[in-house]
Amino acid sequence: MLRADIDWLQSTDLVMTHVREDQPLIQCLTNTVTTNFVANAILAVGASPAMVDIPGEAGLLARSAGAVLVNLGTPSADQRDAMLIAAGVADEAGTPWVLDPVGVGALPVRTGLARRLIELRPTVIRGNASEIRALAGQGGGGRGVDATDEVDDVRSAAMQLAQASGAVVAVSGPVDLITDGRTVVRIANGDPMLTRITGAGCALGGVMAAFIAVGADPLAASVVAGTAFAVAGELASTRAEHPGSFIVALLDALSALDAATVVERGRLS
Amino acid sequence: MLRADIDWLQSTDLVMTHVREDQPLIQCLTNTVTTNFVANAILAVGASPAMVDIPGEAGLLARSAGAVLVNLGTPSADQRDAMLIAAGVADEAGTPWVLDPVGVGALPVRTGLARRLIELRPTVIRGNASEIRALAGQGGGGRGVDATDEVDDVRSAAMQLAQASGAVVAVSGPVDLITDGRTVVRIANGDPMLTRITGAGCALGGVMAAFIAVGADPLAASVVAGTAFAVAGELASTRAEHPGSFIVALLDALSALDAATVVERGRLS
Amino acid sequence: MLRADIDWLQSTDLVMTHVREDQPLIQCLTNTVTTNFVANAILAVGASPAMVDIPGEAGLLARSAGAVLVNLGTPSADQRDAMLIAAGVADEAGTPWVLDPVGVGALPVRTGLARRLIELRPTVIRGNASEIRALAGQGGGGRGVDATDEVDDVRSAAMQLAQASGAVVAVSGPVDLITDGRTVVRIANGDPMLTRITGAGCALGGVMAAFIAVGADPLAASVVAGTAFAVAGELASTRAEHPGSFIVALLDALSALDAATVVERGRLS
Repeated sequence: MLRADIDWLQSTDLVMTHVREDQPLIQCLTNTVTTNFVANAILAVGASPAMVDIPGEAGLLARSAGAVLVNLGTPSADQRDAMLIAAGVADEAGTPWVLDPVGVGALPVRTGLARRLIELRPTVIRGNASEIRALAGQGGGGRGVDATDEVDDVRSAAMQLAQASGAVVAVSGPVDLITDGRTVVRIANGDPMLTRITGAGCALGGVMAAFIAVGADPLAASVVAGTAFAVAGELASTRAEHPGSFIVALLDALSALDAATVVERGRLS
Repeated sequence: MLRADIDWLQSTDLVMTHVREDQPLIQCLTNTVTTNFVANAILAVGASPAMVDIPGEAGLLARSAGAVLVNLGTPSADQRDAMLIAAGVADEAGTPWVLDPVGVGALPVRTGLARRLIELRPTVIRGNASEIRALAGQGGGGRGVDATDEVDDVRSAAMQLAQASGAVVAVSGPVDLITDGRTVVRIANGDPMLTRITGAGCALGGVMAAFIAVGADPLAASVVAGTAFAVAGELASTRAEHPGSFIVALLDALSALDAATVVERGRLS
Repeated sequence: MLRADIDWLQSTDLVMTHVREDQPLIQCLTNTVTTNFVANAILAVGASPAMVDIPGEAGLLARSAGAVLVNLGTPSADQRDAMLIAAGVADEAGTPWVLDPVGVGALPVRTGLARRLIELRPTVIRGNASEIRALAGQGGGGRGVDATDEVDDVRSAAMQLAQASGAVVAVSGPVDLITDGRTVVRIANGDPMLTRITGAGCALGGVMAAFIAVGADPLAASVVAGTAFAVAGELASTRAEHPGSFIVALLDALSALDAATVVERGRLS
């Protein structure tokens, strides 16, 4: 553990305890593939998910929610409308919100939607390298929802996107990278098993939403969330060699996780 | 076990055996968050789920199904139309049906929809305290899908809603409460782990639909379903301390459950 | 193991290795009940799922995907449009695609849709006996999504459908039957537990899509996929007696499966 870890992870206990005590309501407008897993991941860290994603209700909840998650995985027409409404209200009401631009760059409808959403000032944008590069105007994006760029190559794209959008930008990969456009934090935790199940990235988006709902500083809260999630993945991989068991072990690990373990195992730079 | 248990649970063996032998088809119009879990819970007790929720098909199946489940968790526009069609046909054809008013009170679209659905005479209305109070015209509802009222406080609301609607009303909480507007049965079974995963309430709605599909008396069948589900939760909690494992253990327990265990462990009053 | 097994399963190692090395992108337009399970099953065999099912994006991906899965389980209006677009592009671009006609015969909207989709020349049609008979113009279909016909009775229907459509037709049941209209292969593997969870058939459809994405011959690739999936079910059933555990064990088994085990355990005729 480097000196840098201590700094970035110093709020870990505070943030994790806060989430468990306050149980912030996390409104999710997310895809049909991983909704259940995202909801269970949010519950596992102690927050309270509410999947409210229809136009007539999305704005109302975005005003009072602790945070909002907007994940573009399967953006139906109605959901796209609801996302713009919820993000607009969140921006106006000061509700922190996370944009997870699944498949952006490779697929046109969500790419256009993501550009409009970014104007509504997400607190955090979390994606893989392809998605972040596409949003920063670099590269043509991956094939669907996979990352085809190395995370390190994406450093300048992430910083540029963070500066242009005002959001904290979190890039998932073998090493995660999180930046607010000035400071760049790398998290060298995680496990390859996280790429062998569907929805690890989506679940991380949910956990980030839970943590920024209580964290004073979005960059620090995102780093804590990213580290906690990656450490949970490491712990789960010690109990499960295959994906079915790993899904179970990951939810268990998120629930059992304590701040001391996150700080001790965190490999930040 | 009180004398009351014997009475209310006397049909347990009959109902559980019936479901497993007849495998009634349970049509589900339910939310995208927990569809898979609800389907697996219905299968685990021996019934046969069919998630048919588009306007052009929902009415047809509601005529021949053993029971229909209408869960308002993520009510898209098309699904709302299909729900009204299915409930209308169920009412007309005498197909028993369960209304699970997820988030009603706090969220406007589903609240209006629930009021229209209640006019189509659900056999059972199953919700948490906030939702039941909102439907009875008491209190403003919870924040999203959480219960913010104590179950005992909701007794009068549940009785009032049962009398007004003609439905059996089942309120989930630390102690479940089920009433037909005259008799009130309390079930002091269950486990806090049921609140730490998403969809326990949704799954209970599915199990209730399966049990009223074969049970002669909706109140008795609902009490058996509520007790069986809560006992399965207790058994699962002895095998799992964390939510990932608990989800697995709960489905296993529902599948392994026998009537004698339900009757023996049932704590009714 | 009969002589026939060796022939049909001789490409097993090649196909399974190919999927794991090439990680073909499998575009899925599938139902909301089992999306997560299908995605995890596709990942478990080594391919890369992308649930892209909105009209503005479905055609684009169908052009470049390794294969497309079209599953009619919960066909919303937008998804129906997207399915026709994706299948049309797949047909035109030579992308192999699988049609899984869930509930066809019993339910009118999807039955009409399936007939239109068949004109877009699916590479494989995978269903249960009721669904295949309905598509072949025999019998009225099952009740919802269940099979009510014996697989052997469906032999002539499957051959007729294969001849009329040009597709490989795969019928799931106690013994699976796969035919291209001339040759009929029976797979006497599997386990009753596969019918006690939701989505085994859907997941098999996904695995077939993954295998035909790399297999030169659709009939051989379908037989390998069907055998591999059924063998995984057998292996999972040795580790799990109840459905919650079985779901986990099935994903684990799909991930751990090696070609030698499939060939050794395969009971083809």
